[in-house]
Amino acid sequence: MERADAEKPGPLKPGRGRRRAEDVRHATLTAAAELLLAEGVHALSFSKVAARAGVSKMTLYKWWPSPGALAFDAYFSAFQETLAFPDTGDVQRDLATQLRVFVNLLNRNGSVIAGIIGAAQGDADLAQALSTHYVTQRRALAVERLTRAQRAGQIRGEADLETIVDQLWGAVYHRLLLPAQPLTTEFVDHLIANLFRGVAPASPDSAM
Amino acid sequence: MERADAEKPGPLKPGRGRRRAEDVRHATLTAAAELLLAEGVHALSFSKVAARAGVSKMTLYKWWPSPGALAFDAYFSAFQETLAFPDTGDVQRDLATQLRVFVNLLNRNGSVIAGIIGAAQGDADLAQALSTHYVTQRRALAVERLTRAQRAGQIRGEADLETIVDQLWGAVYHRLLLPAQPLTTEFVDHLIANLFRGVAPASPDSAM
Repeated sequence: MERADAEKPGPLKPGRGRRRAEDVRHATLTAAAELLLAEGVHALSFSKVAARAGVSKMTLYKWWPSPGALAFDAYFSAFQETLAFPDTGDVQRDLATQLRVFVNLLNRNGSVIAGIIGAAQGDADLAQALSTHYVTQRRALAVERLTRAQRAGQIRGEADLETIVDQLWGAVYHRLLLPAQPLTTEFVDHLIANLFRGVAPASPDSAM
Repeated sequence: MERADAEKPGPLKPGRGRRRAEDVRHATLTAAAELLLAEGVHALSFSKVAARAGVSKMTLYKWWPSPGALAFDAYFSAFQETLAFPDTGDVQRDLATQLRVFVNLLNRNGSVIAGIIGAAQGDADLAQALSTHYVTQRRALAVERLTRAQRAGQIRGEADLETIVDQLWGAVYHRLLLPAQPLTTEFVDHLIANLFRGVAPASPDSAM
């Protein structure tokens, strides 16, 4: 899945060129992301975003089913580059790089992000939008990188890749949402060491 | 830390026996847990719990700093036995047992639990209560079991135990709070296999 495809705007109006639609989409997502990070997900409305982006509210209604959907789309877009999954050919190094960036982002914007996830609990529409416009896409990108590593022989064939996503990024979210231990670079190193080296003793015989 | 100690009630009134205070505490926690699971954390008030438990509201004010604190205390107590960490001497089997129970619990009461965690985001008092009365204590119990396994040679000495907590229970919470993949018994098996066997290929030389 190429992100360029996923970012194509919706149907274009007759007489409007492709560039114009992309400009509108870009302006809207930027405005929505700024509002989201400044005021939280509950403050986000089509009216506010339309005013800030200088676009018609009708356009927003046409392109996004709800303010929540727009919010998560904006959030996904805003951090798409920041949270990209690098591929230098060394999956452990690449995961460490990406997870450090993610942890840094949470240390800066953690309360807004926790607020977004918190708001999605007990709000079915918001939960659906978060799942469709953020979680599913982020997981797919992570699994894509892990699949390449598995094919390259850097992850064993029987390892469950979807579960790795929960054991890396999910573990980080755990420290954000149920805080008790710090979100540090050392934590990132432990996440990768535990998972790649395994937590069992070196010789399986010594385990029992 | 023995749970029996942690569950001792607060200061007793002169002339009241220990049994009476424990009864009151038990009745209060039971009523609070029932209300919590039936109506969610925001519906919980000292008045409602006092009425349901047949205890004085003043007692609740003395023993718990806030309804949130009482809610998480009740939640912790309600699931303390269900979510106990067994110790048969085989840590992988014990973790599988406990995590299956946890996953089953989330499949039954997941929306209430997600609602509790969601409500704690963006509500500093609730977050503090959740951390003190639930998260910190549950983590300590998990780390205690993992420490015994490490001493028994079933977990290697360099493995970070706090991080294992995030990579097992945190990974499960991830699927609850950012749903995309199912909470199944197979997931539990993958969690343990990924972590104990490690996800790198068997021979370290083949990894590069």
